[in-house]
Amino acid sequence: MGQPNNHNQVINLGRHEKVMEIALRRGFLWPSYEIYGGSSGFYDYGPLGAALRKNILDIWREFYCVREGFFEISSPTIGPEEVYIASGHVKSFVDPTVECKKCGEVYRADHLVREVLGMETDGLTTDELNRHIEGIKCQKCGGGFGEVWTYNLMFRTHIGPGEKKVGYLRPETAQGMFILFNRLYGFYRKKLPFGVAQIGRAYRNEISPRQGVIRLREFTQAELEIFVSPGEKTHKDFGKVSGDSLRLVPRDGSEIEISAGEAVSRDIIAHELLSYHLILTKNFLECVGIPREKIRFRQHLKTEMAHYAADCWDAEVCTDRFGWVEVVGIADRTDYDLKAHESQSGVELKSFTPFDSPKFYRKKIVVPDMAKIGPDFKGRAGQIVERLKGLGEDEIAAFDEEGYIEFDGIRLDRNYVSIKEVEEKVTGEKITPHVIEPSFGIDRIIYCLLEAAYNERDGRNVLSFKPRVAPIQVGVFPLVAKDELTAVARKIYSKLRGEGYYTVYDESDSIGRRYSRIDEIGVPFAVTVDFDTLKDDTVTVRERDSTNQTRVKIGELKDKLTIGKMFP
Amino acid sequence: MGQPNNHNQVINLGRHEKVMEIALRRGFLWPSYEIYGGSSGFYDYGPLGAALRKNILDIWREFYCVREGFFEISSPTIGPEEVYIASGHVKSFVDPTVECKKCGEVYRADHLVREVLGMETDGLTTDELNRHIEGIKCQKCGGGFGEVWTYNLMFRTHIGPGEKKVGYLRPETAQGMFILFNRLYGFYRKKLPFGVAQIGRAYRNEISPRQGVIRLREFTQAELEIFVSPGEKTHKDFGKVSGDSLRLVPRDGSEIEISAGEAVSRDIIAHELLSYHLILTKNFLECVGIPREKIRFRQHLKTEMAHYAADCWDAEVCTDRFGWVEVVGIADRTDYDLKAHESQSGVELKSFTPFDSPKFYRKKIVVPDMAKIGPDFKGRAGQIVERLKGLGEDEIAAFDEEGYIEFDGIRLDRNYVSIKEVEEKVTGEKITPHVIEPSFGIDRIIYCLLEAAYNERDGRNVLSFKPRVAPIQVGVFPLVAKDELTAVARKIYSKLRGEGYYTVYDESDSIGRRYSRIDEIGVPFAVTVDFDTLKDDTVTVRERDSTNQTRVKIGELKDKLTIGKMFP
Repeated sequence: MGQPNNHNQVINLGRHEKVMEIALRRGFLWPSYEIYGGSSGFYDYGPLGAALRKNILDIWREFYCVREGFFEISSPTIGPEEVYIASGHVKSFVDPTVECKKCGEVYRADHLVREVLGMETDGLTTDELNRHIEGIKCQKCGGGFGEVWTYNLMFRTHIGPGEKKVGYLRPETAQGMFILFNRLYGFYRKKLPFGVAQIGRAYRNEISPRQGVIRLREFTQAELEIFVSPGEKTHKDFGKVSGDSLRLVPRDGSEIEISAGEAVSRDIIAHELLSYHLILTKNFLECVGIPREKIRFRQHLKTEMAHYAADCWDAEVCTDRFGWVEVVGIADRTDYDLKAHESQSGVELKSFTPFDSPKFYRKKIVVPDMAKIGPDFKGRAGQIVERLKGLGEDEIAAFDEEGYIEFDGIRLDRNYVSIKEVEEKVTGEKITPHVIEPSFGIDRIIYCLLEAAYNERDGRNVLSFKPRVAPIQVGVFPLVAKDELTAVARKIYSKLRGEGYYTVYDESDSIGRRYSRIDEIGVPFAVTVDFDTLKDDTVTVRERDSTNQTRVKIGELKDKLTIGKMFP
Repeated sequence: MGQPNNHNQVINLGRHEKVMEIALRRGFLWPSYEIYGGSSGFYDYGPLGAALRKNILDIWREFYCVREGFFEISSPTIGPEEVYIASGHVKSFVDPTVECKKCGEVYRADHLVREVLGMETDGLTTDELNRHIEGIKCQKCGGGFGEVWTYNLMFRTHIGPGEKKVGYLRPETAQGMFILFNRLYGFYRKKLPFGVAQIGRAYRNEISPRQGVIRLREFTQAELEIFVSPGEKTHKDFGKVSGDSLRLVPRDGSEIEISAGEAVSRDIIAHELLSYHLILTKNFLECVGIPREKIRFRQHLKTEMAHYAADCWDAEVCTDRFGWVEVVGIADRTDYDLKAHESQSGVELKSFTPFDSPKFYRKKIVVPDMAKIGPDFKGRAGQIVERLKGLGEDEIAAFDEEGYIEFDGIRLDRNYVSIKEVEEKVTGEKITPHVIEPSFGIDRIIYCLLEAAYNERDGRNVLSFKPRVAPIQVGVFPLVAKDELTAVARKIYSKLRGEGYYTVYDESDSIGRRYSRIDEIGVPFAVTVDFDTLKDDTVTVRERDSTNQTRVKIGELKDKLTIGKMFP
């Protein structure tokens, strides 16, 4: 996840503040460790926030695990050092940092220079940063700064007793999937393409995070790694979506509306598979409740993109408070990750693609004549045989032609060996698969959704969540708190809970206040029991957004509360 | 989680090894970081294991979040030091440890003494351990040991740059809920009892874990914290379960079968609320697929139990490999946790219980006569007024009776004040709620379930998962791989996936082999498309455990595949 992108930013603090006030007061999001004075970069999901997140993750699984058929795996959050040496995080997941020599306040060096001197800092070296910082004073105490150092953003710990074995908290869930490649390839019965999903915590020890749930030290990712043959970056269902429209901001900075198919044929998106996943991402975000007009896809600039990536697009959502916020990254990571782990671990991470029919090659081989080599070279015979085994095709050809070969100070004549031509059968080809990675920042999606769902009606707060997403789906109310009504209402409440609806019961205050109370947390339906209920077994069902009220038989409630239940 | 309990242990390595072989080969459980030589105490959930876990957690949520109405929250896994100072983990979550001075191997000191000297080590002090270890040599190299030190089992890290702010990875999810008490109490509209749930990772940096998924350094907990009034450890539905039977091993070591109600009335279980949760735990474990006869509840011995706990029971499951394994702990933690955090943070963590009607007390108060005190005591007048404000009821009574009072070397006569009797209105009482905590070790439950589900049929492996729990619910097969059959089979496959069933498609090898392949991973249903399908739109549904085959119309498949779907 990069920085929220501040171009075209629309500031409307009121809306953000209203949403965050509801989130805090009603139990969606709470800054963590409040009773201990807080700890920035950490947030708790309260009862409503956790339910909202669960519903969003269930929809994500429905999109990717059930419908696309990507199995989910779950790997540890703590990993040994080697993993993150291979991935490049130990070396490159760093920020340039300076500390005030007087008060000890730590700053991100490039941000400091950018803010104070108003200059672009992308690509500045440590030396250049040092020179610029010389003239800058600490913004807290006016003190001077020490040298710029690189601060690694991974949380560091030790595995087992002592300090021998360094471990890191994963900065992304992705690496846990790459290193399982051989196991996963076996699970998918050694066929490409296949995809695998992981949902879980990831960690970035930010220097001083100050943007609420947009920049967390501990956050939830949902990532997919799709392993494909380099030459087959297609999708069998691309035809079904190729006419669907995408709002793109390609590298040149223009903004265009274009079909998924045309974006590929005009070389704006690198290939079908990426384009397919842009569409799927858009559909997911819309399904969750982000309005279509607030979604766009921005292509990474060459300078922004990892050097190994072939193409990368961010799904961005327009927010009132933070402008366009990156919520999903969709990258073609090529063979970088598998090759990096292969090289670090020494374990081959490759797929094997059989040819349609075996191929046959003629090649020359050298067969040593031991009856001659043994007696003539004695103790060095073994060494000679080893060297002969290791000869390449070119060396054998030269040996055959020139009549002798030299190595290790030995000259061996052609008559010590026989050189034969044989036929070799090759049944297929080993390759390092490429990886396409859609990576979702769940906390950011939740923030964007809260903002998008918020509206006011007659001066009161309403969160217009879709029924599938709403943390609570039904409120059950007796019109007044009289025993004959509360008994029936409680029975309906228990029945709906038993059927798997997230339901609340409330009998205090006026019915109007109870409606307002659940509107504010986005409950789509209210069921009210009144005196007519006792006569004809009907209740009033009120729909949150239209405020329409319908009279429904208790036995037919299930048909009216069309929610998508949490449990079957 | 304590040690697996080895009393009454039945060793049958074959069964354990067969299950673990399937788990590894088919993709349930993989030892983590294999390509980097492994890292003990860490396991990956492969595609089938992760699905199994997800299904179990969904059932858990259905039991506790939906039916019992406990909301789920989600707090960070990294916490600042203060939290774990308060909880006692910084001081007490330690193992006595020794290191070989020669080879550097680290041992748990008490285990070393127990194993080598064959003696009981519970309750030995560090000094006593040191004396015993003097005579012991390193089991690896024969070297001598250094001094015993206490090793803290929490993973330690730093929050933000530098080493100023120490953080720990949580050793249990519980603390995250205790410190949210005030927020949660507000969310539940300031009424006791209420319950809150959390599912997530927890961490224990074991010295040298060697028991697979039974003892992990990173594991998944599902915990409930139920906050109750100390005098109200009851449950409104206890009557519904009080006749249900429990297999108990109380503190005296006997094993009895007794009803939940009788266990309370005979003072074996401390109170109704604990007994209710023993029943609920048993029902959950059975619902997941652990056979009733493999479940018992063992009461903690006084020496085993935390000093503050009022009563504690472990649900244990009988395994072939590890004997009785603790999978759930159900404890009455009294007011310990809230008081500890209140004291550490300085923030009050109490509930307020209003009386049915306000209570009125008559009490005496002292009103200083400033017109006299001011002129006579001048500069000390302020100090006197402060002291008078702070007088207790007894002191005021004595002052009134004796006619003077002395403090700070001052004697003040009765005539400097007036002493009046007033009426005080008290509307309720502040209390620290007690906490009942059922805590589930999800990884252990999964291991026990794998073992319990395993059986052999005609020399082939079968995992008899319940349909709701099975990672894959349906296999769809064309009888032979001919286009006309595969087309129909693929269509059924897509349709079932679209309806939310976890489905696999397989066309390779004989139909018998395909049945065996899915029996081994516990798929409850197979749907086979054959040439009759093309005539009459029927398919064969085979049920895994009975191997019964039924002919079913494609349109009526949903009624036959009674699974409990993953998504509505």
